[in-house]
Amino acid sequence: MNEDYVARSAQLALLLEVSAYPKPGNVDRTHDFIDTRYEHFLASSVALYPVLREAAARGRSNGLGVGELIRRGVEESVAWQSGGNTHFGALLLFVPLAMAAGACKSYDMEEIKRRATELMLNTSMADAIEVYTAFPRAKVKVRRDVPELDVMDEASIHEIRERKLSFYAILTISASYDLISRELVGGFAKTFEYAALIKDFAKEARVNETITHAYLRLLSEEEDTFIKMKFGPEKSRYVKERAQWIVNRGYQRKEMEEFDGELIREGLNPGSTADIIAAALFITILGGLRV
Amino acid sequence: MNEDYVARSAQLALLLEVSAYPKPGNVDRTHDFIDTRYEHFLASSVALYPVLREAAARGRSNGLGVGELIRRGVEESVAWQSGGNTHFGALLLFVPLAMAAGACKSYDMEEIKRRATELMLNTSMADAIEVYTAFPRAKVKVRRDVPELDVMDEASIHEIRERKLSFYAILTISASYDLISRELVGGFAKTFEYAALIKDFAKEARVNETITHAYLRLLSEEEDTFIKMKFGPEKSRYVKERAQWIVNRGYQRKEMEEFDGELIREGLNPGSTADIIAAALFITILGGLRV
Repeated sequence: MNEDYVARSAQLALLLEVSAYPKPGNVDRTHDFIDTRYEHFLASSVALYPVLREAAARGRSNGLGVGELIRRGVEESVAWQSGGNTHFGALLLFVPLAMAAGACKSYDMEEIKRRATELMLNTSMADAIEVYTAFPRAKVKVRRDVPELDVMDEASIHEIRERKLSFYAILTISASYDLISRELVGGFAKTFEYAALIKDFAKEARVNETITHAYLRLLSEEEDTFIKMKFGPEKSRYVKERAQWIVNRGYQRKEMEEFDGELIREGLNPGSTADIIAAALFITILGGLRV
Repeated sequence: MNEDYVARSAQLALLLEVSAYPKPGNVDRTHDFIDTRYEHFLASSVALYPVLREAAARGRSNGLGVGELIRRGVEESVAWQSGGNTHFGALLLFVPLAMAAGACKSYDMEEIKRRATELMLNTSMADAIEVYTAFPRAKVKVRRDVPELDVMDEASIHEIRERKLSFYAILTISASYDLISRELVGGFAKTFEYAALIKDFAKEARVNETITHAYLRLLSEEEDTFIKMKFGPEKSRYVKERAQWIVNRGYQRKEMEEFDGELIREGLNPGSTADIIAAALFITILGGLRV
């Protein structure tokens, strides 16, 4: 698929996802975090365009360089805005998906899924080092009581070299507790499941509700990684059950707003869930979803 | 200047301008029109990227094709969203400015201004025909009791050919009553005046307030074309005086919100004012303004 088309679809997905509201706990057009504001996400979405286009173009040639493109995406993002980590999780998903889409002759969800899965399987130690180099620049907040290789410092890069670990190999370690890693080594299962769901929702609802409902549905199915790591499993289970309750009662706007207020007050932001919904939206827009 | 940089600066200006709130009478992140919603502006901003990049690239070579690029921008915009006219006024300003910026070796406000002014002077009959071809596609609402050549139909294109009118010549006719035309034939005076003002405001305020205050200031200085054409001179004078009152009292948020509510209720949308502020913001972002 045309690289400009792929990059614009990715960019529109990022913009529509961050704009959708109420999206319990996350930045949306009506909610800022203290350091990271809505405008930082707009600027970062603009900043990423050339890297997303390059990803699509490179997918067509050989597909090398997943890690390099993620690092360059982080660099572009922080060059255009000072709000810190806006799109690190999204970039991890969007780079292989954009490469896969760029390699397809025409839109074919199954082919994009297969190619993106293969791309991840073929990632190397060089990809791992690029991504680990980008971590401090992305200002990703990581917990300190972490499994091996989860602290993003010089020691980790040294260990990657020592053990000759590929990016894929590292992600298989974190896949046990991290939603994004699970997508990357698990064939992007949730991304494509939710792309189909979004396409379905969009037949009946406007794009804003399509996104907020899909987001809430995923929150009701999977405990969010950010919340589990920052606040523990009890809190992430609670958030999941609260989301289930709202989904079961048919996505009442008032209940979503209350839930949003509660999560915002407690600083509980399900960032990984938002990243996966953005990736799912990207696939649906590639397939022709329009506002 | 690098074409990717120019296109991203333009895109960010469009996104930040439409997002800023409260922006009395216009679409913002908290206000939709009935047919044209906030999301339509997001999608249109994404859609315009390749045309803006092409404009910057072409500015470097010879600067031909202002009209063609405006027409292609309209086509891209309506291919990506179904909300009708989102960026026609903005495109009229952004295309020559992007071409001028692309032709500059480095950022130089005076050089961009000079080059954009020259580009407009050199526009041809072909440019006029391209723009007039784009009008019906852009779904621009025009009044019917208009001066010559302001009805965008086959007859106008015929007349352009008969009288061999350049795009510039036509704009000099409408410059007497149309703010955008006046910018295009008058050396982009307000655009650059407000670029300097925005740069100044941004030293003290966040980007949202920088934009809404600049918008209100322009509204207090110039009667908006859209309002004058749709509701008559009495109404546009009233809007201007109301804006003056708020500016003089120091941009009180509550007063801006009340003014916004009033204009929205009456359907008074100062679209030309918003377009000029977006263009001014583009120049300021080109010069390094960041979120």
